[in-house]
Amino acid sequence: MTGLHTDLYELRMAASYLRHDLNASATFSLFSRRLPDRRGFLVAAGLDEALTFLEAFSFADDELAYLRDVHGFDERALAALAPLRFTGDVRAVPEGRIVFADEPLLEVTAPLAEAQLVETGLLNLITFQTTIASKAARCRLAAGDAELIDFSFRRTHGLAAGAGVARASAVVGFAATSHVEAARRYGLRPSGTMAHSYVEAFPDERAAFRAFAGDFPVNPIFLVDTYDTPAGVRAAVEVLTELGWSGPAGVRLDSGDLAALARQTRTILDTAGLTEVKILASGGLDEEAIAGLVAAGAPIDGYGVGTRMGVSSDAPSLDSAYKLVSYGERPVVKLSPGKVTLPGAKQVFRDPTGTDGDLLGLHTEASPPGRESLLVPVMRAGRRLDTATAAEAVRAARDRFEADLAWLPEPARRLTEPVPSAVTVSSELAGLQEKVTAAVRSGDAAPIARR
Amino acid sequence: MTGLHTDLYELRMAASYLRHDLNASATFSLFSRRLPDRRGFLVAAGLDEALTFLEAFSFADDELAYLRDVHGFDERALAALAPLRFTGDVRAVPEGRIVFADEPLLEVTAPLAEAQLVETGLLNLITFQTTIASKAARCRLAAGDAELIDFSFRRTHGLAAGAGVARASAVVGFAATSHVEAARRYGLRPSGTMAHSYVEAFPDERAAFRAFAGDFPVNPIFLVDTYDTPAGVRAAVEVLTELGWSGPAGVRLDSGDLAALARQTRTILDTAGLTEVKILASGGLDEEAIAGLVAAGAPIDGYGVGTRMGVSSDAPSLDSAYKLVSYGERPVVKLSPGKVTLPGAKQVFRDPTGTDGDLLGLHTEASPPGRESLLVPVMRAGRRLDTATAAEAVRAARDRFEADLAWLPEPARRLTEPVPSAVTVSSELAGLQEKVTAAVRSGDAAPIARR
Repeated sequence: MTGLHTDLYELRMAASYLRHDLNASATFSLFSRRLPDRRGFLVAAGLDEALTFLEAFSFADDELAYLRDVHGFDERALAALAPLRFTGDVRAVPEGRIVFADEPLLEVTAPLAEAQLVETGLLNLITFQTTIASKAARCRLAAGDAELIDFSFRRTHGLAAGAGVARASAVVGFAATSHVEAARRYGLRPSGTMAHSYVEAFPDERAAFRAFAGDFPVNPIFLVDTYDTPAGVRAAVEVLTELGWSGPAGVRLDSGDLAALARQTRTILDTAGLTEVKILASGGLDEEAIAGLVAAGAPIDGYGVGTRMGVSSDAPSLDSAYKLVSYGERPVVKLSPGKVTLPGAKQVFRDPTGTDGDLLGLHTEASPPGRESLLVPVMRAGRRLDTATAAEAVRAARDRFEADLAWLPEPARRLTEPVPSAVTVSSELAGLQEKVTAAVRSGDAAPIARR
Repeated sequence: MTGLHTDLYELRMAASYLRHDLNASATFSLFSRRLPDRRGFLVAAGLDEALTFLEAFSFADDELAYLRDVHGFDERALAALAPLRFTGDVRAVPEGRIVFADEPLLEVTAPLAEAQLVETGLLNLITFQTTIASKAARCRLAAGDAELIDFSFRRTHGLAAGAGVARASAVVGFAATSHVEAARRYGLRPSGTMAHSYVEAFPDERAAFRAFAGDFPVNPIFLVDTYDTPAGVRAAVEVLTELGWSGPAGVRLDSGDLAALARQTRTILDTAGLTEVKILASGGLDEEAIAGLVAAGAPIDGYGVGTRMGVSSDAPSLDSAYKLVSYGERPVVKLSPGKVTLPGAKQVFRDPTGTDGDLLGLHTEASPPGRESLLVPVMRAGRRLDTATAAEAVRAARDRFEADLAWLPEPARRLTEPVPSAVTVSSELAGLQEKVTAAVRSGDAAPIARR
């Protein structure tokens, strides 16, 4: 029932392809043409939702009626669309893996009309979650050993985007999310403290903290900056001391000079013997602010990261593309200036030692010795191969990210002026590119129809 | 069933309020603390979805079980949440109206726990759609009389965000969207042409154009830049001439020097007598690119605007806030440095002549003569007052935007270094602010509890 989640031109093209018997097997490759500024790498994400989208792809009767009544689709086109399902194969880079520009995140092989119809949905889902995971990964790099918590839900692009952000940030190792529904859906650790309005709702901070610790005695986190941060910390100390507190607890700083206040807070807590009470910081943070606090030696145990991560504020999208690379048995290229594509279904061969850069080759070529292949089959004949639960999928993706993060060469992981790892085209792919380009230029291979 | 679409701390605070009998009527005000750079105004949007969210707000049994099992909510808290619905009143600036920083987009008056629980959802929905409508409005200002088409779906933040963007851009006068499901849902004009892959699928451009015009004879738009733009335009001319075409048709330019190519294209079309064939431009456009093309006198009749509008690339969020302004019968302020709030339920009084700036006053004060009040009641006791269909709501919002756009003073409508209209605090509001601040400072009014 997701058939109308597409651009109108996809529907028109698909109808036209079906009418003109242009429906041989086609392979499309989804990749990012370049990395945004300040990105040394991307983290693949969005695949799980993309496969769900493909499995559900179909047209309900009222959707077909809409196409007929409003768009003038004729009975022949509607008859072709009515039974249409996605029956193709998908190979993809598993979620959580680190990739670079030009490397396919996903390749679809399906009858041309099907592959065309799912373009918009696939680009949307993969681009969005990869954008967010890549931004959140930079927060991870900045934070070192400190915990990260997703606080972004209130300013993501709609409610559904909030769940996507919670998931994408969990993939790159965020420890928890404030978003309750996302936590439930993806098996994430939920986290939540109190707002200033809560503190304001009581006669004073002590009363507020006392009520909160009584109501939520598991790891209460007190927001201490409503009036004056050091005074707020002392109020928290008083309440914890009065309760004879020994379990986990924390204070949250949400404004002011966080580095200086964190040091003051640590001193107050330690002096009171509350050395185990943690300090959490929040308030307009992103990877650069976090890196600044870490560099300043601020004794902060965790960061709540919100809007700037949740919309990837400095680069809210990717220059992603979904390009036809073969049709029927024949590889295809596009030669528009600045937008040249490489022909054929591909594979990325990675040096696990990180010494050499990635090799971008053909799906059909043999892996060079010692190299790992990034794209793996994830769907066959329209059915996903992996039947992990939503929570298992996130955990597996997170494990992959942790392994790739350990692998990631230093120049690519820099926060400032990162240098992505080199991606070299294999000699087989380069040879094919030359051959196909020559054939196109000689007028021998351009059209994929009526051969 | 949207009760878990919230931050965990809202649930904890609500449970705690209910337990401590802090559940008098509270008013929260939702506003943007400042405008992003390069914004002279905001366009209110997202209200319709926000009201839908409020009407649906409730907890299903499995959601309550999740709160018990995973979050340790006790039976008393669950018993309070189980029957909870949003029963409050909402006053808001209708969608499509132009507003400025500090002006409430929406005010909620409800029992404290309810008003607190819906914070995250309301902030999310209003912030997202207002962000996009405000960006898209700048494209409107840049394009003059040319038509604008939303091409953003492939790179919005998820599938649901795509529908939100289509709707928000329609509110500010985009003429059509490529997004089929959004067009269906909101009664928008769908628009779609062909992709390069379609042209590549045929032996040559003529064959592709001929097939397309045959299959979709209502206003076919030919993509002419797959190989060489002037040659593509000549192919379109040949096909249209050969078909004896007289109805609406167009060509789309998607790469290269759009201003120069549009002029060449116009000449080729006019020379062939096809003076009615329109020229559409697309490809990484935003308001600045469009303004450049308009300034260059490019003969372009319509613009397809995609990613940069759909993620509001230069300012993908707003510094929005949802702040308690009164509790029980008493106005409330927050005095944190840089985040001072104004007390009490508010009203915006606008000078319809545009000579004087907006006046930000109290909801209860009389409108100054000749001024219009922007906030109107939209929900009472949890029921929305306006029962327009989705399509009617968009049309009404668009009408309001057109009227406000005509009203908008010149400094605020500039694309470069715009100057927002002044927003002055009324003397009644300023007086109240002084009084409440003094009371807080004297320790006489800070807490809202246990009075």
